[in-house]
Amino acid sequence: MPQDDLRIANALADAAAAQSLRLFRTPLEVIAKADESPVTQADRAAEAAMREILGRERPTDGIYGEEHGLERVDAASVWVLDPIDGTRSFITGSPLWGTLIGLVRGGRVELGMIDMPVLGERWVGQAGLGAQRNGQAVRVSACSAVEAARIFTTSPDIFGAADWHSFDRLSRRCAMRRFGGDCYSYAQLAGGTVDLVVETGLQPYDYLGPAGLIEAAGGVITDWAGRPLGLGSDGRVIAAATPALHQEALAILNP
Amino acid sequence: MPQDDLRIANALADAAAAQSLRLFRTPLEVIAKADESPVTQADRAAEAAMREILGRERPTDGIYGEEHGLERVDAASVWVLDPIDGTRSFITGSPLWGTLIGLVRGGRVELGMIDMPVLGERWVGQAGLGAQRNGQAVRVSACSAVEAARIFTTSPDIFGAADWHSFDRLSRRCAMRRFGGDCYSYAQLAGGTVDLVVETGLQPYDYLGPAGLIEAAGGVITDWAGRPLGLGSDGRVIAAATPALHQEALAILNP
Repeated sequence: MPQDDLRIANALADAAAAQSLRLFRTPLEVIAKADESPVTQADRAAEAAMREILGRERPTDGIYGEEHGLERVDAASVWVLDPIDGTRSFITGSPLWGTLIGLVRGGRVELGMIDMPVLGERWVGQAGLGAQRNGQAVRVSACSAVEAARIFTTSPDIFGAADWHSFDRLSRRCAMRRFGGDCYSYAQLAGGTVDLVVETGLQPYDYLGPAGLIEAAGGVITDWAGRPLGLGSDGRVIAAATPALHQEALAILNP
Repeated sequence: MPQDDLRIANALADAAAAQSLRLFRTPLEVIAKADESPVTQADRAAEAAMREILGRERPTDGIYGEEHGLERVDAASVWVLDPIDGTRSFITGSPLWGTLIGLVRGGRVELGMIDMPVLGERWVGQAGLGAQRNGQAVRVSACSAVEAARIFTTSPDIFGAADWHSFDRLSRRCAMRRFGGDCYSYAQLAGGTVDLVVETGLQPYDYLGPAGLIEAAGGVITDWAGRPLGLGSDGRVIAAATPALHQEALAILNP
């Protein structure tokens, strides 16, 4: 079963990349969605290609996708898809956008993938089987203290005032803080070169793929109250390399 | 002469990449410099390799390098070198670091290069000869109004309070603002997918390579007072796709 899950996730990522790379750095029709995030033709075409594969390979599984909505999300297995995470990176010609795939089974993320088509890096983790970048094993760092941690978030602009105050308090105590990166920050965490990622305003398709990768790489990822992430989380995410770092960071976020 | 300049710039970038890629994502001895920016073994080895080439090929030219200081900077031709711009990206495993090369002749940047070894993208511009990414011609966007502009800077943390106030006022009037990217933001501007880059606290080796690229790609790059950049600028840089955008942005920065 895990091998077949991985085969399908690879096929989904390949199909998404074929669509998205075709349109990268070409003029795009950018459509304003209700939540005002930019959406591109590439985003829609990539998710349609992924759904076509799932319809053929796993017709009874559920799908929770960014672009084309929900199908059978009460099924035993649900695929959570973000064809292009980092659409602002995509439309500004940055390589730091990726395809996120999470497979949720029994309320638990069994597979998580961050595929970076421009970089040629496929990061995948499976519960109990570890994590790999392009087939090579990766693992989180051993960082266990906020003062030694390298912390990432996408932008100050993703936070409301109170959440920014919390993030700012935490990040100023870290050894280094950096902005930008979108989903790639979670891959860096899985690979041991970043120690903390703290964000807010995320959707399940933004965090469940990364969650599966990070847990398989030995890290911890929860909401800001320390609860496991699921389809119904509030979109505030903290990912840490170690349980000790996670606990210390949570205590600073919520004093 | 321009062809030979380009041949040498390519050799410098190749030599730097050979050193830096060898050490990327391996544990590094990170040495705190006086200005506290991280410096790596890779940075030092890459610049030494570049200087070795210049010593052989252009023994009377000057060198202004980040790591190993100044030599003959009153020569007619001065090579301005940053072996790894974006050392924080480098040590956190992000691909967005690059080698910057500028060739200053008679107070003017005749060649500017941003080489991105992990991405496999070499961006180069020469005065009067245009700009290319991997040999393919690139050009800045036609964006001429702040309200339509995509603006980039590396981090809110690079600004002092007064400069941040100015940047914030300008960037909030833009269509999109993004953080992160280091030197790659200037490449995106040269390629037409970003319209404005505004930074502060830069050194000549941070901005002269990008300046040569951006001018050759049809853009405008100056200090915040609108003066041309040189070895003695104050480190505040604004780069824009068009003269109209540059003028409007300057007026908002300096009301």
